[in-house]
Amino acid sequence: MQDALLALTRYWTERGCLVVQPYNSEVGAGTLNPATVLRVLGPEPWRVAYVEPSVRPDDSRYGENPNRLQTHTQFQVILKPDPGDPQELYLGSLEALGIDVRAHDVRFVEDNWASPALGAWGLGWEVWLDGLEITQFTYFQQAGGMSLDPVSVEITYGIERIMMALQGVDHFKDIAYAPGISYGEAFGQAEYEMSRYYLDDADVDATKRLFEEYAAEARRMLDARLPVPAHNYVLKCSHAFNVLDARGAISTTERARAFARMRGLAREVAQLWAARREELGHPLGLVEPLPAAEAPAVAVAVDRPATLLFEIGTEELPPAEVTRAVDAVRTAVADKLAATRLAHGAVEAHGTPRRIVVVVPEVAPREPDAERTVRGPRVSAAFDAAGEPTKAALGFARGQGVDVSELGRVVENGVEHVAVVRTAVGGGAVEVLGPLLASVVAELRAEKNMKWNDPKLSFTRPVRWLLARLGDAPVPFAVSALASGTTTRVHRTAEEPVVEVPAADGYADFLAGHGIVVSAEARRAAIVARAEELAASVGGVVDFAGVLDEVTNLVERPTPILGSFDPEYLELPAQILTTVMRKHQRYLPVRTADGALLPHFVAVANGEVDEDVVRAGNEAVLRARYEDAAFFWRADLRTPLERMKAGLEKLTFADKLGSMADRAGRIAALAGRLADVVGGGDATLARAGELAKFDLGSQMVIELSSLAGVMAREYAERAGESPEVARALAEMELPRSAGDALPASRAGALLSLADRFDLLAGLFGIGANPTGSSDPFGLRRAALGVVSVLRAFPELCGITLGRGLALAAEVLADGGAGGGAVVVDAGALETAREFAVRRYEQQLLDAGHDHRFVNAVLPLADAPAVADGALAELTGLVGREGFAGLVAALQRVRRIVPADVEGGYDPAALTEPAEVALHEAFAAVPRDTSGPAAFVAAAGGLTGPVNTFFDEVLVMAEDPAVRRARLGLLAAIRDLAAPVLDWQALGTDLG
Amino acid sequence: MQDALLALTRYWTERGCLVVQPYNSEVGAGTLNPATVLRVLGPEPWRVAYVEPSVRPDDSRYGENPNRLQTHTQFQVILKPDPGDPQELYLGSLEALGIDVRAHDVRFVEDNWASPALGAWGLGWEVWLDGLEITQFTYFQQAGGMSLDPVSVEITYGIERIMMALQGVDHFKDIAYAPGISYGEAFGQAEYEMSRYYLDDADVDATKRLFEEYAAEARRMLDARLPVPAHNYVLKCSHAFNVLDARGAISTTERARAFARMRGLAREVAQLWAARREELGHPLGLVEPLPAAEAPAVAVAVDRPATLLFEIGTEELPPAEVTRAVDAVRTAVADKLAATRLAHGAVEAHGTPRRIVVVVPEVAPREPDAERTVRGPRVSAAFDAAGEPTKAALGFARGQGVDVSELGRVVENGVEHVAVVRTAVGGGAVEVLGPLLASVVAELRAEKNMKWNDPKLSFTRPVRWLLARLGDAPVPFAVSALASGTTTRVHRTAEEPVVEVPAADGYADFLAGHGIVVSAEARRAAIVARAEELAASVGGVVDFAGVLDEVTNLVERPTPILGSFDPEYLELPAQILTTVMRKHQRYLPVRTADGALLPHFVAVANGEVDEDVVRAGNEAVLRARYEDAAFFWRADLRTPLERMKAGLEKLTFADKLGSMADRAGRIAALAGRLADVVGGGDATLARAGELAKFDLGSQMVIELSSLAGVMAREYAERAGESPEVARALAEMELPRSAGDALPASRAGALLSLADRFDLLAGLFGIGANPTGSSDPFGLRRAALGVVSVLRAFPELCGITLGRGLALAAEVLADGGAGGGAVVVDAGALETAREFAVRRYEQQLLDAGHDHRFVNAVLPLADAPAVADGALAELTGLVGREGFAGLVAALQRVRRIVPADVEGGYDPAALTEPAEVALHEAFAAVPRDTSGPAAFVAAAGGLTGPVNTFFDEVLVMAEDPAVRRARLGLLAAIRDLAAPVLDWQALGTDLG
Repeated sequence: MQDALLALTRYWTERGCLVVQPYNSEVGAGTLNPATVLRVLGPEPWRVAYVEPSVRPDDSRYGENPNRLQTHTQFQVILKPDPGDPQELYLGSLEALGIDVRAHDVRFVEDNWASPALGAWGLGWEVWLDGLEITQFTYFQQAGGMSLDPVSVEITYGIERIMMALQGVDHFKDIAYAPGISYGEAFGQAEYEMSRYYLDDADVDATKRLFEEYAAEARRMLDARLPVPAHNYVLKCSHAFNVLDARGAISTTERARAFARMRGLAREVAQLWAARREELGHPLGLVEPLPAAEAPAVAVAVDRPATLLFEIGTEELPPAEVTRAVDAVRTAVADKLAATRLAHGAVEAHGTPRRIVVVVPEVAPREPDAERTVRGPRVSAAFDAAGEPTKAALGFARGQGVDVSELGRVVENGVEHVAVVRTAVGGGAVEVLGPLLASVVAELRAEKNMKWNDPKLSFTRPVRWLLARLGDAPVPFAVSALASGTTTRVHRTAEEPVVEVPAADGYADFLAGHGIVVSAEARRAAIVARAEELAASVGGVVDFAGVLDEVTNLVERPTPILGSFDPEYLELPAQILTTVMRKHQRYLPVRTADGALLPHFVAVANGEVDEDVVRAGNEAVLRARYEDAAFFWRADLRTPLERMKAGLEKLTFADKLGSMADRAGRIAALAGRLADVVGGGDATLARAGELAKFDLGSQMVIELSSLAGVMAREYAERAGESPEVARALAEMELPRSAGDALPASRAGALLSLADRFDLLAGLFGIGANPTGSSDPFGLRRAALGVVSVLRAFPELCGITLGRGLALAAEVLADGGAGGGAVVVDAGALETAREFAVRRYEQQLLDAGHDHRFVNAVLPLADAPAVADGALAELTGLVGREGFAGLVAALQRVRRIVPADVEGGYDPAALTEPAEVALHEAFAAVPRDTSGPAAFVAAAGGLTGPVNTFFDEVLVMAEDPAVRRARLGLLAAIRDLAAPVLDWQALGTDLG
Repeated sequence: MQDALLALTRYWTERGCLVVQPYNSEVGAGTLNPATVLRVLGPEPWRVAYVEPSVRPDDSRYGENPNRLQTHTQFQVILKPDPGDPQELYLGSLEALGIDVRAHDVRFVEDNWASPALGAWGLGWEVWLDGLEITQFTYFQQAGGMSLDPVSVEITYGIERIMMALQGVDHFKDIAYAPGISYGEAFGQAEYEMSRYYLDDADVDATKRLFEEYAAEARRMLDARLPVPAHNYVLKCSHAFNVLDARGAISTTERARAFARMRGLAREVAQLWAARREELGHPLGLVEPLPAAEAPAVAVAVDRPATLLFEIGTEELPPAEVTRAVDAVRTAVADKLAATRLAHGAVEAHGTPRRIVVVVPEVAPREPDAERTVRGPRVSAAFDAAGEPTKAALGFARGQGVDVSELGRVVENGVEHVAVVRTAVGGGAVEVLGPLLASVVAELRAEKNMKWNDPKLSFTRPVRWLLARLGDAPVPFAVSALASGTTTRVHRTAEEPVVEVPAADGYADFLAGHGIVVSAEARRAAIVARAEELAASVGGVVDFAGVLDEVTNLVERPTPILGSFDPEYLELPAQILTTVMRKHQRYLPVRTADGALLPHFVAVANGEVDEDVVRAGNEAVLRARYEDAAFFWRADLRTPLERMKAGLEKLTFADKLGSMADRAGRIAALAGRLADVVGGGDATLARAGELAKFDLGSQMVIELSSLAGVMAREYAERAGESPEVARALAEMELPRSAGDALPASRAGALLSLADRFDLLAGLFGIGANPTGSSDPFGLRRAALGVVSVLRAFPELCGITLGRGLALAAEVLADGGAGGGAVVVDAGALETAREFAVRRYEQQLLDAGHDHRFVNAVLPLADAPAVADGALAELTGLVGREGFAGLVAALQRVRRIVPADVEGGYDPAALTEPAEVALHEAFAAVPRDTSGPAAFVAAAGGLTGPVNTFFDEVLVMAEDPAVRRARLGLLAAIRDLAAPVLDWQALGTDLG
């Protein structure tokens, strides 16, 4: 392993990198070393490579976990500015490590990096070696809250991982560290002891005090304008925080506060560093931006219709962006062509992770000429009585550069003007297409964009080359620092990675000849066909759910490879196995015809690889992951549920809101009270409440938190709980996100509601409201969950948002099940309720409902299922005869009556026929309707009398008694209608 | 520079070293990394190499000093066990760095290393490259208070130093760190900012709190039996302490406390680590000790007298040890030869740093045979009445293996015994010499001894080879792991560093032929001759004072080289220049005939070197040192004395005793009071008091603390103070150590006394007494100083130890000149006084005075000059007629009279002639004598009457009045004699 570090050091120094030493205070990653996080700021060039032992207290495992270490070894490279070919340089470094990049499947898999604590982010990839993440590769976009210009390329190698793969060992301790000495022999004791320290023995109070001392010292150094020592103390803060976190001593609220504090300090450090470097006159000089490219002159004329080939060559796009970018480029080219007069065939576009290809057949060699008429003054003003041209006509002619005698006539809006007809000569196709394609590139944008070494372009990943041909002719153009050419890039591992493209026609075949399938459909079909063939070879079928689209856009030519794993792992719940396969590895699971998992998977490699090597690598990765999972699984199965549950006491939930055990206790209590509202609970609910969230204390969920609930069900069933209890425990975690499955059982629904009401009432109660984009506690998700569950369970409509929150507040005030009492004031509850209503409103709008209807039913939203019903009826009523009239009439009533007038009147005071008629119509409306449809049916008869009343009666009669009776009648109608809908919200144009 | 680090890394990994990363917390040296300080413990093998950025807050210079950095780069190598040739391996590493070790003067100069804070020490060298210290090379003997077995070799390269020499640059910032980027460009800002932090901005209180937190955490981890995290926190403690120290926030007492605490923790860490490794079963295995060597059988017989050549080959001995070892080996060989019967010539011995050579001419080829008589029982017991042998005779004969008839006779003390005469056959010279020489090696010891890879030997430096020949014959023997041979080692840079020595005769010439001068006298003469020649070439003479002996034993063949420095440095006081030349560089200064310094020096290189290269190197080293000094000198000259003095307020002196400014104030006040005791002060004393210790605030003394006083004089004179004041300021620092010069002026003496009385009274007053070997405040030195000054100034004898300390306590109680009042209790003052008296006693004994006389004058020691006089007189009296008699008489009086009897009597009660005679003799003694001589002269008449009194009178008469008078008379005699001397102490054998 030490030879590997030396080899990397040598490789990068030979490429102009400075070597620095690891930082001499504990850091969580090489990025935190000032050689990265400060040096990426500002305009100075910087190339550096170094080893960084990276301390992650949270990853402490006493040296027992084969892949997890409290201190692992990173090798960090910073290239500033982006040299233009960093991926190629990186692949060279793998070869320097002795990795045959032709035999292995090396892939750049989207992985964006953000450190909120540093105010830093970047876009890039994790690099996979046969499915194993060995490197983080990032274009650093922002640090300390400052946008980086120039952008740095950050390459972080995970050395232990690479060594384990290269040496084919299963545990980090077995890595040959130096001749005759293993990693475990050299560092095993430290790994054990520091794990003990971080997990069990660090003094929590002392560490909190250290955090404060460090933060204060950082603050003072900022005030003294010394960014280097200030940064040093920010790092110490960060490590102290990580120690506290590993000790389980950080509540969610403390975490948020600590992060905000560290982020603030880091930002100030960054700004101060940048300012100081400027004051020092940028000692390392300035990065020269790439010069603007120049397009060569057009060399070849095109004289007949030809195919346009246009390729935008990129570094690996995120899979989702491949599809989006292909669509966007297709549309842009089509729209821009439409704005020219070039005739052309249908615009076709395809893409792979590394290219977006547009093909337009039959592009005319030139635009036709076009005539354009320029209108001048009116004839009557252009010639005087004598028929001589006036000054106006002379001026117009001069302005157009023609003699006055050449002016023609044109009639516009019935008025005759003088005019000039001009001929626009059509452009040659190549001349027209050049700027057009340049603007497509310049305007290219993705959902999330980045900068690289190009001074002007911005896209989801760097654009590295442009290819444009019209038939055989090049289409020269330049955009920012890139000029179009006639070459493309094929697989990086090809003998000749850059090849000349002789002609536009047949480009897909040309690429196929170089092992690249440009059509996503073709790739997908190839994957499906080959994967099914492979699965069939072991008697199975492929489960394509979830990852097929992604995999299709992760490769330029799919090479499905069948791998296997030890069948003993099938003892694990299928959801664990598939979660690991899909989410972590993008493998396709293989099942029997009846859906049971088989011990096989299909991995999709890119291009030609040594399949045996790649299979073995992927199998080793999966084995390591499954071994981890199996370890937790077996350990958990040996643990009684009560013991897991007891573990919740050690998990701090939030300041003032106690531990996770307290919260689970409150959820159980609250679920009971909610059940009472809707007819009472049962034994299932009671037992599930007792066990609520116990699986948060399981090792599996501590490792794979996305399996919370799933594991509760598995462990509960195996511990002999009833299927209903197990199910309720699983369902209480639903929905995990918008669009996720909802609870199906009543007990599950009640627990899910209790969980979320407790969260909302508690956190709003302690003032931890979400702000702007910051929602550290997931309160938006919780509110959406409450609304979704209530909508799915109309039978629970007795539980309104307000009622649910009030009951949650009651439980909090009781100090429910162990937590100290928390008093939530009414204002906070109302804010929480409003917050949930807003989520409901957004849900409806997102579902495409008319915003007027949505607004109309919002007064009912406290019971979302009820509001849903009203909305459905309302939507049905629109366009029905009489509905618009009734709405208008009710709105008219509401507008006329001052809000403070109470409904009710003395009918005897009403004497005019129209008012008497309205009184009678109103009296005839049944009072016991429910929902808009019934109300409209019942109150439809009011429309005519209301309108007649307003036509014939002066509401503001001089006689106060009469006036009072008339207003009272109208107010009574208003009050009758008000609970049904917000009629005003429907507007005046219901057609 | 980064290439150099890579080259070293490669060199050492190719020699089996593991590479680890720098420690990820601030450390002051690579030694502190657990890869050294923990791994050297215990029996496991370990070879490691690593870079360590070493943080020394105290060395912060804002990046301005060319050689001093708050963080410098060490390259650290540990070889455990000692591979047997670590120096040769080290020289190979220099070649790997591109250093031509043949052209340069590479030397191993004694430098022992100890870290009290770590409970660690070792013996070794600093390695000089043309006079520049580039490496520390240590045989690590103890760590954490534990003796190391096996011993590790520790090699620490100072990388910046080496780079500056290799690249020929004058400032660390100018080192080419990487292609196109200098050290200053890469790290200059951090150097400046961290200097700011350490020197000016670190929060003292916060850092003190951090120290406490770290110490507490280390304590807890020890209790949890986790040495790795415990060590981590000891390191953090140590760094926090260093930061406080750099901030000037550590008083002497705090320093002692902090060191004791860290040392205690470090010891516990070491013990715990060793224990844990044992519990873990020593995962890296055990070091095999070297097997015992076997001496080859004797192959060649010697048949006539021949020369014995015996060489003990070592690694570079400390210069002082060369002489000692040569003497010791000469004596040992001579003594051991004397115990044999081998005839031989005079034993001659010589030595160089790498060898001790013994030559004995004319060693006989064999020992003569010898007869030995074994005495048996007396004849009377050996034969019964019948003349038959008894059982005793038979038993004796059997025991001796002879027949009873063979028993002879021998007379001893007049008694006749039976006896056997045995012939001891003389041994062959080679057989006799082998074990003899082996025992010389085995018993070899120096003042301070060490272990290396040999399982049994112990000496000041490793013994690496043994050469022994008798004439042409080898003398084979073995001792521990070494066997004698017939080769020697010449210069390590020779073509053949190991050469066969064909014969014993002419060895000095043989060595001379290989460029080695084995005789120290010859080397010294060569140095003197060549140095004088070189000095003459620039019109000067060499000042050999101080370093000639050392230099003679630093080389195997001296190559004096004349170097020069810029004459502008001659503006500096000569003492600065010569201090640097002698103490730091072992150069010989060159002066004009009248003693003024010339800008030249003579350096003495070892063996054949490229003189131009070595000259240039040495000149560069001296230039850097002088540049430093000149920088401080000029800065100080621009600083008014008052400003320097004001700087003392920032120097904490000791807890409760205020700052150094407070102390200086007290010294001035105390000097005044002391002067009052002996007739009053003057203007010189007053002014010198005002300025006392101001130079501690000068940059020069902060850098070179040994120049305190010297600089005071220089700066005071240049600031226009009178020569007397300047001299008094210099003299107050005298004596610096035992044997140092003493003040010559009265003002100087008074200030010197005041300085030391204040120190003693203050520190004993706050209970900081020295204990055992620990005397952090130098109180022994101070007490010796007080005594020496008082002895040198009999005119100040009014100032007794008691008086001086009491006055110091008064000043302390006044809160003298700004410090808070400190009340020193009488007990503490008496302890201090006793402490000083003990120093005086030791001084006298060390000077060879008879311990009885010393004890006799000790009652006078409160005024040491008075006691000196008494001692001189007493010494003169011994042997004089009547003296012994008087002493005996006075002792007899003292023995008889109980201590509680008061002197004084009623003469009327005395009636016996003898008692009357004694009364009269006593009455006739003059009462006003001073000193023993006068007293003896006056009281000599008492001897006879006293003796007669005791012979004739019964003291204990029955009549109480008579008894009282007799006792009273004797007590009066006792009381008269008591103040003169402690007569009892003289004993009874004054001859």
